[in-house]
Amino acid sequence: MTTQLTEAVKGNITRQVKHISGEERIPAETFVKKVAEGKAVIPMNKKRIGAFNPVGVGSGLRTKVNANLGTSQQRSNKKEEVQKLEVAIEAGADAIMDLSIGEDIDVTRREIIERCPKPLGTVPLYQAAMEAGSAGNMGIKSFLNVLRRHAEDGVDFVTIHAGITLEALPLLGKRLMGVVSRGGSLLVRWMQKSGNENFLYRHFDEIVSVAAEHDVTLSLGDGLRPGCLNDATDEAQLHELKVLGELGRRARAAGVQVMIEGPGHVPLGEIAENVRLEKQHCDNAPFYVLGPLPTDIAAGYDHLTGAIGGAAAAAAGADFLCYLTPREHIGLPNASDVREGVVLARIAAHIGDIEKKVPGALEKNQKMSEARTKRDWKEMARYVIDPQRYEEYLENEDLTDTCSMCGELCAVKVYRESGGRDSN
Amino acid sequence: MTTQLTEAVKGNITRQVKHISGEERIPAETFVKKVAEGKAVIPMNKKRIGAFNPVGVGSGLRTKVNANLGTSQQRSNKKEEVQKLEVAIEAGADAIMDLSIGEDIDVTRREIIERCPKPLGTVPLYQAAMEAGSAGNMGIKSFLNVLRRHAEDGVDFVTIHAGITLEALPLLGKRLMGVVSRGGSLLVRWMQKSGNENFLYRHFDEIVSVAAEHDVTLSLGDGLRPGCLNDATDEAQLHELKVLGELGRRARAAGVQVMIEGPGHVPLGEIAENVRLEKQHCDNAPFYVLGPLPTDIAAGYDHLTGAIGGAAAAAAGADFLCYLTPREHIGLPNASDVREGVVLARIAAHIGDIEKKVPGALEKNQKMSEARTKRDWKEMARYVIDPQRYEEYLENEDLTDTCSMCGELCAVKVYRESGGRDSN
Repeated sequence: MTTQLTEAVKGNITRQVKHISGEERIPAETFVKKVAEGKAVIPMNKKRIGAFNPVGVGSGLRTKVNANLGTSQQRSNKKEEVQKLEVAIEAGADAIMDLSIGEDIDVTRREIIERCPKPLGTVPLYQAAMEAGSAGNMGIKSFLNVLRRHAEDGVDFVTIHAGITLEALPLLGKRLMGVVSRGGSLLVRWMQKSGNENFLYRHFDEIVSVAAEHDVTLSLGDGLRPGCLNDATDEAQLHELKVLGELGRRARAAGVQVMIEGPGHVPLGEIAENVRLEKQHCDNAPFYVLGPLPTDIAAGYDHLTGAIGGAAAAAAGADFLCYLTPREHIGLPNASDVREGVVLARIAAHIGDIEKKVPGALEKNQKMSEARTKRDWKEMARYVIDPQRYEEYLENEDLTDTCSMCGELCAVKVYRESGGRDSN
Repeated sequence: MTTQLTEAVKGNITRQVKHISGEERIPAETFVKKVAEGKAVIPMNKKRIGAFNPVGVGSGLRTKVNANLGTSQQRSNKKEEVQKLEVAIEAGADAIMDLSIGEDIDVTRREIIERCPKPLGTVPLYQAAMEAGSAGNMGIKSFLNVLRRHAEDGVDFVTIHAGITLEALPLLGKRLMGVVSRGGSLLVRWMQKSGNENFLYRHFDEIVSVAAEHDVTLSLGDGLRPGCLNDATDEAQLHELKVLGELGRRARAAGVQVMIEGPGHVPLGEIAENVRLEKQHCDNAPFYVLGPLPTDIAAGYDHLTGAIGGAAAAAAGADFLCYLTPREHIGLPNASDVREGVVLARIAAHIGDIEKKVPGALEKNQKMSEARTKRDWKEMARYVIDPQRYEEYLENEDLTDTCSMCGELCAVKVYRESGGRDSN
């Protein structure tokens, strides 16, 4: 049994380590050490199908962006989800999660994975719940059955909500919103009904063993993430975080790569502390955050709210941002929502990268600014985060060396005509 | 001569102080003290025309949002600008700036001010430059002539770029982008051509005297704000900031209310420090920021970039956010850009208000979350920041007690069915 982690521990530079080091402009030796320490991961199933672009997630690397897609019960159209996949990849997503719960979950996933050139993640628990019919019928056996199917299809990372334990349930009584994670709520319902410990926790080693076999990265899910500002950074959340840290150590000891999932709805001023706590309790494992959302009242704009929180999280050291779309909290996103969500999350990630001093991040801003001093609209298109939107806007403009906002009062132009020099 | 400031210094609770205290849910005595100390302002011209809703800006108050509009040389259509005004007010802008430089500047301004129920600001220097034909012909006499016209029309606050002095010009040589403020560049050109000190600085007392007569609030402009991350928080910027602090003291001593304008393009990690420096050097005068923009490469999305920086600035104590539109750096915004810009800036301001513990801010989030636990879509509409967008999205949904994203796997529903209790 070999995984990217076991190879890294031996100091072996795999083809993927080499490729990613080149893309990230860091020495392969530096990167492989991070993988060995569990501070970075390379989510890539050994049975990966089709063309694939390996992606690294973690310390010292560019902050990555994930786009969720997948059918729902009300809207189950494989073709639409494949279209969203294409839109997300074209808009620059670094990873995709297929969260399908509609018809033909297996077929949908296989169609998506074949067309997905970046790491693909899933949440096998959703399918286990759908197949079980009612949550009461779920169990480790049917779960492992689903997990194996995903692993054999080539899924690169899976969310495992193994951190919710019986001990945490009484802590939920203090919450305003309780549980807002799909996986979390299914497990809480199962635990309440059966009175038993979370089967993902109890049988974690069996999950690890499937993951090790296929080099599936475990994304340890935050089933108890806060769903509103009032519930942020509370006892229930921190209880789960500590369990995730413990599970992460067990998984890595078995050669399995691990990411930790994080909140959720968090006031802006608590975001950096949330990142610090994850790094502390989870041995600096890559932190994968959903948002965070620093306000609860922006439904219709939660892609923006998520970008505000995401930028703060990335700047504080979060490694992986899950996008949100404008449709979050309201319904299933369409392809245009997906595009908007990916671009906004990429902007947030980039703002974080400037703070992290990721190689090339500030430099790109500098080149953009140099082009701007020359009012070279074409050159600027090389550096903007979304050239497509930029070009669309330019088409409506009758651009000379100034734009329709300032015209002859263009400060950049006036300053240069006054003899103002540039440092470059 | 009386102004809101002179009245506050005497401890007089004006009608406006009373009104604003009620709206902000703070004691009038607390607020009037802030006005007396120059930590808060009430931009309201004594000759204010038409229906008016007084607005306070500063310490202890809700973070306010300004929307810029106005004709340009390429697009000079009064009707369109009036439409943008209506859109901005409807979307919740707290103040408007008319930056017109197209045809009939006086007429445009008068049409706007008559229809503007919130504080209206202008930058008289733009009109002075347009009337002078070339910047070389500008001077204090023609400037005061324009300023008086604005004051007599009822303009509530004016940007005055009096902080750029000859001493600062050599510091610009170290910059990548030099000067990116319209007003700043016009003055630098004038200073370079004439070799004279900035006439706004030299004749500041004459400006103050016009402002005092009409109770026009001075918004001391940051003509040297950084135009790219490389230039942020540099010597030129800080030189001007200190001069603005000095000018603010002089203005307040003459009974004139003062705000300080701030950057600009600033890395996320430097934003809080920029707010701290303003409060330190400018005696805690209200800080009015443009963005800040924590990346230079997001043209087409700078309303978002500005919201990320604006949230960080507001959280750190900035009092007033100038919106940006998606069209920033590319062209003059249209009415739909204006709407989007206002809403995004309001979200940023609100996120800051949660951190500032502004009365009612967190409470609104709590009420939203309570409605969310009940999946009460109608009740949620009462708390969302933009009910119009929310309702538009809802129209496409076939909502029951869950939405099309999760359906029967709705975590909020599943949790409650499992016997999960709410604290409330």
